[in-house]
Amino acid sequence: MTAGRIICAGLGPGDPDLLSVRSDRVIRAAGHVAYFRKSGRQGQARRMVDGMLRADVREMAMEYPVTTELPFDSQAYIHLLATFYDDWAARLQALAAAGTDVVVLCEGDPFFYGSFMHLYVRLKDQVAVEVIPGIPGMVGCWNAVGVPITWGDDVLTVLMGTLPEADLARHMQGTDALVIMKTGRNLPRVRRALAQAGRLDDAWLVERGTMPGQRIARLAEVEAADCPYFAIVLVHGRGRRPVAGGEE
Amino acid sequence: MTAGRIICAGLGPGDPDLLSVRSDRVIRAAGHVAYFRKSGRQGQARRMVDGMLRADVREMAMEYPVTTELPFDSQAYIHLLATFYDDWAARLQALAAAGTDVVVLCEGDPFFYGSFMHLYVRLKDQVAVEVIPGIPGMVGCWNAVGVPITWGDDVLTVLMGTLPEADLARHMQGTDALVIMKTGRNLPRVRRALAQAGRLDDAWLVERGTMPGQRIARLAEVEAADCPYFAIVLVHGRGRRPVAGGEE
Repeated sequence: MTAGRIICAGLGPGDPDLLSVRSDRVIRAAGHVAYFRKSGRQGQARRMVDGMLRADVREMAMEYPVTTELPFDSQAYIHLLATFYDDWAARLQALAAAGTDVVVLCEGDPFFYGSFMHLYVRLKDQVAVEVIPGIPGMVGCWNAVGVPITWGDDVLTVLMGTLPEADLARHMQGTDALVIMKTGRNLPRVRRALAQAGRLDDAWLVERGTMPGQRIARLAEVEAADCPYFAIVLVHGRGRRPVAGGEE
Repeated sequence: MTAGRIICAGLGPGDPDLLSVRSDRVIRAAGHVAYFRKSGRQGQARRMVDGMLRADVREMAMEYPVTTELPFDSQAYIHLLATFYDDWAARLQALAAAGTDVVVLCEGDPFFYGSFMHLYVRLKDQVAVEVIPGIPGMVGCWNAVGVPITWGDDVLTVLMGTLPEADLARHMQGTDALVIMKTGRNLPRVRRALAQAGRLDDAWLVERGTMPGQRIARLAEVEAADCPYFAIVLVHGRGRRPVAGGEE
């Protein structure tokens, strides 16, 4: 018997037409798919492949442990999460050992802030793992705005909205182009940091980029109380001029 | 007669299997394709679609003006380049006005340091322009290394190797994960800046990521005289811990 493989298919920003040719082929042929989701939700990754899966596909929903009882940064929650990844890595490894290929569906690019990497580090020395890159969500978002994000020698910085306000403001001041992910309820802090860095008026909020229900707005014009969960904040670069003695 | 469209197809990092489903479909159906290249070269974008084009396709090679006589940052060269983009924008606009669709082939993602944006700003208010996102080259490169680039709350900074050494070192010190593009003959400066920032031992050089002839090496172990043109330098993040009060 030949051992199976774990194939992580990057799904891109949301529009199924923006899947890679390889991910599209692998997903349509899959006999087993697995995906992360919050308990009780369909899950963004699963929703993206609606209508693409084989009728006889076996689905495994990897439901994150519930956090309402524990602070997400507590040792207890971190332990719970590690156990969750251990368990799923063991289940996927057992399937591969039994000769089954499993396709793990991951939004965006799996190696760019993706949850799959927690399985990847547990599996990569145990079974054959293939990772198929995807268009990161931020790329779909800046294309949705219809303005190039970086030109010339622009510096691009990607920040998580979870960082402390002073750190956010410092990074925002020191860069040309900006992407801020994990906004949601951190959005008020992100907004204050942008204002402090003098970048608020150039900031865009892109919600559900490339997906049905896409919304694009200037962040300064969005109600402060409106904190959409699946949203990215962008500030476009203006094209830093190359310096003398630079690129050929 | 219906006016034609200019469709910029992002090509992704190099492997044709990593094209988006939409770019793949548009490129295979194209009657007219255009692509940038250096004079006398086949051009990277054109090479990526070898074997995909219709037999009767009309090809337009947009050859950059030669720079050997002029410093690339001189006013004279900047003017030459602006005229070059003006001319091609006018030619593409005339084709679209005559009812012809033209597919412009662009490596990586067109809005991420792409040359197409110089045509885009000239065309977008004159004709219908569609831009199809692609997987940026850097995403292909970090997937090729097989190590996640960012975890948790990591800050990612993208730098051009053309920046002054002190600027490079300052940004390298202040970030978790790093991508450095436009390396080539700037590689010795990039290497010095990485050493100054204490990041050289963590740096990877990825040459021709996802393409035939791909090479991956630790930058510290690459000969100083070896400055491959089509290469990206990466430093992986280690997973900054979320801070209290952050993401739900």
